Amino acid sequence: MEQGRIAQGKARITDPFWLRYRSIVRNEMIPYQWKVLNDEIDVCIERERNDSSIPNEKSHALENFRIAAGRSRGHHYGWVFQDSDVYKWLEAAAYLLLEEPDDNLKKLADGVVDLIAEAQEADGYLGTYFTIEEPERRFKSLMNSHELYCAGHFMEAAAAYYEATGNQKVLDTALKLADCIDRALGPEGAFGYDGHEEIEIGLMKLYHLTGEERYLRLSRHFLMIRGTDEDFFGQQRKNDPGAHPLIGGMEKLTRSYFQAHRPVLEQDTAEGHAVRLVYLCTAMADVAASTGDAAMLGACRKIWRNIVDRRMYITGGIGSTVHGEAFTFDYDLPNDTMYCETCASVGLIFFAGQMLRSESDGEYADVMERALYNTVLSGTALDGKHFFYVNPLEADPAAYASDPGKSHVKPVRPQWLGCACCPPNLARLLSSVDRYIYTVKDDLILVNLYLGSVMELPAAGGTVVIEQITDYPRSGSIRMRVRAEGDRPLNLGLRIPGWAQAFDLVLDGNEAAHGSQAGADVCEKGYCYLRNLTGAHEIVLKLCMAPRLWNADPRVKEDIGKLALQRGPIVYCLEEADNGKHLHLLSIDPSGALQEEEEDGALGRIIRITAKGRRIMQPAEGRSLYRPAEERTLREEETLLHFIPYYTWANRGSNEMCVWVRACAE
Amino acid sequence: MEQGRIAQGKARITDPFWLRYRSIVRNEMIPYQWKVLNDEIDVCIERERNDSSIPNEKSHALENFRIAAGRSRGHHYGWVFQDSDVYKWLEAAAYLLLEEPDDNLKKLADGVVDLIAEAQEADGYLGTYFTIEEPERRFKSLMNSHELYCAGHFMEAAAAYYEATGNQKVLDTALKLADCIDRALGPEGAFGYDGHEEIEIGLMKLYHLTGEERYLRLSRHFLMIRGTDEDFFGQQRKNDPGAHPLIGGMEKLTRSYFQAHRPVLEQDTAEGHAVRLVYLCTAMADVAASTGDAAMLGACRKIWRNIVDRRMYITGGIGSTVHGEAFTFDYDLPNDTMYCETCASVGLIFFAGQMLRSESDGEYADVMERALYNTVLSGTALDGKHFFYVNPLEADPAAYASDPGKSHVKPVRPQWLGCACCPPNLARLLSSVDRYIYTVKDDLILVNLYLGSVMELPAAGGTVVIEQITDYPRSGSIRMRVRAEGDRPLNLGLRIPGWAQAFDLVLDGNEAAHGSQAGADVCEKGYCYLRNLTGAHEIVLKLCMAPRLWNADPRVKEDIGKLALQRGPIVYCLEEADNGKHLHLLSIDPSGALQEEEEDGALGRIIRITAKGRRIMQPAEGRSLYRPAEERTLREEETLLHFIPYYTWANRGSNEMCVWVRACAE
Repeated sequence: MEQGRIAQGKARITDPFWLRYRSIVRNEMIPYQWKVLNDEIDVCIERERNDSSIPNEKSHALENFRIAAGRSRGHHYGWVFQDSDVYKWLEAAAYLLLEEPDDNLKKLADGVVDLIAEAQEADGYLGTYFTIEEPERRFKSLMNSHELYCAGHFMEAAAAYYEATGNQKVLDTALKLADCIDRALGPEGAFGYDGHEEIEIGLMKLYHLTGEERYLRLSRHFLMIRGTDEDFFGQQRKNDPGAHPLIGGMEKLTRSYFQAHRPVLEQDTAEGHAVRLVYLCTAMADVAASTGDAAMLGACRKIWRNIVDRRMYITGGIGSTVHGEAFTFDYDLPNDTMYCETCASVGLIFFAGQMLRSESDGEYADVMERALYNTVLSGTALDGKHFFYVNPLEADPAAYASDPGKSHVKPVRPQWLGCACCPPNLARLLSSVDRYIYTVKDDLILVNLYLGSVMELPAAGGTVVIEQITDYPRSGSIRMRVRAEGDRPLNLGLRIPGWAQAFDLVLDGNEAAHGSQAGADVCEKGYCYLRNLTGAHEIVLKLCMAPRLWNADPRVKEDIGKLALQRGPIVYCLEEADNGKHLHLLSIDPSGALQEEEEDGALGRIIRITAKGRRIMQPAEGRSLYRPAEERTLREEETLLHFIPYYTWANRGSNEMCVWVRACAE
Repeated sequence: MEQGRIAQGKARITDPFWLRYRSIVRNEMIPYQWKVLNDEIDVCIERERNDSSIPNEKSHALENFRIAAGRSRGHHYGWVFQDSDVYKWLEAAAYLLLEEPDDNLKKLADGVVDLIAEAQEADGYLGTYFTIEEPERRFKSLMNSHELYCAGHFMEAAAAYYEATGNQKVLDTALKLADCIDRALGPEGAFGYDGHEEIEIGLMKLYHLTGEERYLRLSRHFLMIRGTDEDFFGQQRKNDPGAHPLIGGMEKLTRSYFQAHRPVLEQDTAEGHAVRLVYLCTAMADVAASTGDAAMLGACRKIWRNIVDRRMYITGGIGSTVHGEAFTFDYDLPNDTMYCETCASVGLIFFAGQMLRSESDGEYADVMERALYNTVLSGTALDGKHFFYVNPLEADPAAYASDPGKSHVKPVRPQWLGCACCPPNLARLLSSVDRYIYTVKDDLILVNLYLGSVMELPAAGGTVVIEQITDYPRSGSIRMRVRAEGDRPLNLGLRIPGWAQAFDLVLDGNEAAHGSQAGADVCEKGYCYLRNLTGAHEIVLKLCMAPRLWNADPRVKEDIGKLALQRGPIVYCLEEADNGKHLHLLSIDPSGALQEEEEDGALGRIIRITAKGRRIMQPAEGRSLYRPAEERTLREEETLLHFIPYYTWANRGSNEMCVWVRACAE
């Protein structure tokens, strides 16, 4: 019993905010990333941490394929998961080609498909490291070999590329690979699962595309055996002690790093490496929605609640520590040492998207939107050619330079990253963001995101065309033209975001609803429903976009006494460029007016917000570090605080930034 | 020109506070540490970080000497600097024997001296690792070999033991070692200095004891060549690439870690490994005071100012990061990720003690006292058998357990430490704390610390006997009987601590001065002087001990909006045992009364302090992690905050602790 569907198919983006990003992906990110993957340009690669055992002076990712295909000679270079950079690039290219033909891009992408197919071994195995260096070690070091991880990314890319272009070779290559893995590690093969979840997602993509139950079964198999073993990874390592550091290492990691500490159905907190966890949950939620597996859905719900109630930043970032790029414990959300990897928020969007198929609950779309407009967009510079892996809520160039515990919190985006998972992950998400606008459930369409676009959706026994005309998120006004041409009447659920204090909904000129999401009389779990629509309708939704200040739960130690500013889905921040050094000296007056001002400048077309507040004045030099409080020597002055959208920070050079600001004493 | 002297010689401690610590050192710490060093008891050794390359399941320190001496067979075990644990134990034993005869202890210690002498090679070289394992590698890996570091600790121990017992063998062994090092690396030998400063201190101790200028010259030589090279450590490593990991490693450390980034006279900030820096400064200040070297003194002053004005915790802890156990940057004083190693505060006391010889400035004694009564005392459990290496200002067992970035911040003191520098360093400081009470400068005696004791001092051309009768720091009342029997009149400088709001000084029944330290008319740089004393006098000093709340400089981001409580020299803290979980929910009313209450219980004889404050109430379960501020859903209740002395924390099991407490909005 399929619960609902991710809205695939051709979409046309029309709003200025997203057209800009689409253009960046098409004209900057994808050509730039191609050159990097092909070693055509010199990039200054920032190493993640000082791991001198890993070479990362160049990408070499395409050259690895050429060597595996026999077109070049040489050794594999880079991370053992370097192949996935190419696959994610191909997936992003597929989405761009689906949106709009582009002969040059298609030629490049077809060429990549040919190359990948050539690099595939006769039995279907695909993975350049092992093909080039250690064919005898296939599937013997699954803890860190990333073989199934890379395979999953190829399956995702293949499904997208086949859908966009009809290229049969890419699909055949992917199916041959899936069959090879099924033989080796499927229900009838050896016991084994990958240290990094992803194959489970890729197999579901093949299942959705082909309808072949075997891929669903294999995905479910990998999910269900995870964590059921005594110590599978340790055993493999013991059986093959000579493994290369690239595929060995990680001995010090606990099983929860890999979400292998217990069977997935018994996991009820978000543990370990954040990207792995959300990839795992994405696949679990997909299997649950595709099969109606209530136990699987229940497990997803528990982990979701733990993330959203206790382990997620206001920016939609996840992963509270750089150590293992991982979750830590409930309410532990430090702003300046966290990880908040771009990929983790991309994965959180995937997870939310899959959950919406099973449950029409606006919270999933709220989180999706939060992650998208904040951490994910922060992952790229406005030029589309510099990238953050780590997205802090507080940054200080001095700490980056002089505190090794914060050396991962870069104050400017590097050109590329030694471990380059994030840039192409961003590219594939930004080029397919339309897929998250709607969830289609037979006679019901959920409108999750407001995004100027035209899209045809199969629903209510026919085709539904929905056009959104909006300048969201600058404006909260969304005009929708809906043409329901199916056999049955259509129900439409319009998400009323959790951040919206109020909304107005007008159907064909008549007020249909108003109030706030909290008003249970007009909204049901975050959606306001228009039912039994047939033919053409015009809907106008107005969301109140007034900036608001937010508290964190007081159990979040790092945010106590502090406020964050949000306007619509956009979280704001203070940057040194606008507010001077020592941002922590500033406090915001919670009862002061919040002044909006439009701007189209260095940070793009944004709305700046100015707030009233105070600044603690710096004491004179030579004063003691500690002073008696009764001397009351701390002086404050009235000041204005100048906020910018969080995703635009670090586009004006290295400087301080913070999201959470102390509240003035009232 | 000698500027002043550390007050050595026989002292009798009489006050209850320090008698207790002396008894702990004598009856618990020293016997316990003997058993550990001798592998006589099983201890649960806590590894510092997960460094599996370093064995540390037992101490083996004395066994290493036995093997080097030919009494046992086997391999060296443990850190390459394991010998120094034995030397520090011997030094502590020396101080105890100086105070009071103890045949059993003397027999053990004499035996250790015999063993050390036997382990010494014919040419004077002493160092069990190289003697046992790699005699050909002597002095070839000075970056991490700790050869001179260990030698320096032996010289300190030897000087103390000779002074206490007249044991000639220990002195001969030390001088033979010094001569060996002088030949190899002295002004006429090869270029080289140790990665960990200490030999410079040890040589000065030999110089003070023997008057032999060659040791002063060698100490000064090591100081002056430091950081003058292009890359001495790197060059040594290149010349000897096969060095064992124990003596290699550290390649990733910058030269500032070793204070070798520039010549010491040009260093003006506290950089690198905190213990190394203060050991360096101790030797520099000793050389400066012993020779009147103004340039050297100037360099010490600059580094001192940087530490005290910008890089020192209110507890006298130093070292803001675990990474390299190091300083970071100005005003970076995080409370929950810092290092604040016990040894670093011990070294800060050494540094301050040496500075007092050159400069009669009470700030040095203020810092000495701050470090002593807070971080140093916190380094040991009240039982004298459990030790902290890291002394946090905020601790949370959940963070220790689940955040690898805070796994060095233990919520309870381990029995022993894999790297066991701190426990014996504590022992030698606590057993020689009397040396810091006075600084003798010819006709002037500075009274730096108030500590019930009787001490004979050579001053004013004869002997001065000073008896302090006090229950400090419980009470601020100190009665002093001074008998000045020298040829010349004595001047006495009584420190008026920076924390004292007021004081009264009575000489022979007549008021001599009153006011506060700030009152420049009665105090000169923190000392109140009584001049031209001859014969017997009785002095009564009353220091106001009223508890006070303190601010940090607002540039300290982590402490902004927070207050710390101090009573006399004792910094206070909140502990979960008295205040419940989630200490960050508490805030203190700065204008509320601070109630003192004496107690003699599990935490010893202490004064508890109760303050008025508020507690943010925990929201009901199921509430969103982020809520609009205008909902004003945060509820507070009035409460009492129960403070205990910081040094007594973590003696009642694992629980939360914090020093800095949010101030209530007024």
